Amino acid sequence: MEFPPLSTSFTISLPAWIRDELADVPDVIPSRDERMALVNRLADRNWREGNGGPFAALVAETATGRIVSVGVNVVLATNISSGHAEVTALGMAQARLRAWDLGREGAPELELMVNWRPCVQCYGAAMWSGIRTLVIAGSGPELEELTTFDEGPMIAEWAEAFEARGIRVVQDVRRDEAIDVFRAYRDAVIDGAVVVYNARSGD
Amino acid sequence: MEFPPLSTSFTISLPAWIRDELADVPDVIPSRDERMALVNRLADRNWREGNGGPFAALVAETATGRIVSVGVNVVLATNISSGHAEVTALGMAQARLRAWDLGREGAPELELMVNWRPCVQCYGAAMWSGIRTLVIAGSGPELEELTTFDEGPMIAEWAEAFEARGIRVVQDVRRDEAIDVFRAYRDAVIDGAVVVYNARSGD
Repeated sequence: MEFPPLSTSFTISLPAWIRDELADVPDVIPSRDERMALVNRLADRNWREGNGGPFAALVAETATGRIVSVGVNVVLATNISSGHAEVTALGMAQARLRAWDLGREGAPELELMVNWRPCVQCYGAAMWSGIRTLVIAGSGPELEELTTFDEGPMIAEWAEAFEARGIRVVQDVRRDEAIDVFRAYRDAVIDGAVVVYNARSGD
Repeated sequence: MEFPPLSTSFTISLPAWIRDELADVPDVIPSRDERMALVNRLADRNWREGNGGPFAALVAETATGRIVSVGVNVVLATNISSGHAEVTALGMAQARLRAWDLGREGAPELELMVNWRPCVQCYGAAMWSGIRTLVIAGSGPELEELTTFDEGPMIAEWAEAFEARGIRVVQDVRRDEAIDVFRAYRDAVIDGAVVVYNARSGD
């Protein structure tokens, strides 16, 4: 086989507007609530910029609120379907720290913050990343109802399975604000203003 | 916030030995069985090279057997914990084809081949990639028993959920050979010759 045409690498990149959006944001945001406000803001801008779905995430030090990485859904921008916000934020943190285990001994405890319960892919991605806490704006049917995104087949006891692996789950941080983002996205979809990408639906 | 230290990209790359390993392999391998033999061979070499776990995958055109991409587990080599064989192979295919939907209309039907049932992360990654068929060497407890890798919480009806989304599942292609790879890896772990990475176990 020849390289190319076979690919030997692919890159997940943040969009250029992230730099502007974060220019005046401090490196440390001690309040979890304020950190989630940033996540919701990035999620809202992300779909409006045509970059991907209305999703954002960040990795922060739990004790201090220092921001280690940010991520947004970059599926449309990169053509990489695994480039959800969680995979992006976790990968950026691992690239920065040069460590595949974000929960390694002796390092500050890290948490992943996302603007909704992860889909089944990102459920696993969070589980294998070493993060010690998952903080989500919310969970429940609102996301799928509003956005039509398929979260995939999750076990009913998904949060308990995190806890059993030593990963705390914190829910309902700025939930209403997260739903407002999804609602705005839904309205744009109805207007035909954005591309909805999703799994194939068995057509 | 400053970039850097915040990362703006990360890259998933195949190891250099892949090029040598595939130098004499044809671009088209019509037999599914022979394609899985290649997957098992890459999986076996991958852990011996210290690149990551004993896992490999490829994306091929179902009708012709043309190889679109290959992937191996690159977690240790790249520090990116999502860099499992499936995510790697799917991303390489999407980078080559410049398409996040590997099942888009008018394109040849593609299949993902892997040397065992995907973990929960890659279950979702396969689901969102657009592939129309998943071909696995096997499923069942042997993988977790032999390698101690945690597959994560999967729903019991995992294959049915693929089929419901229009993704066929083909099982038990060179199953014994896949188990031999896991057994060799297990023996090396017992000898202390390799690093086992995994999710945190709640310690």
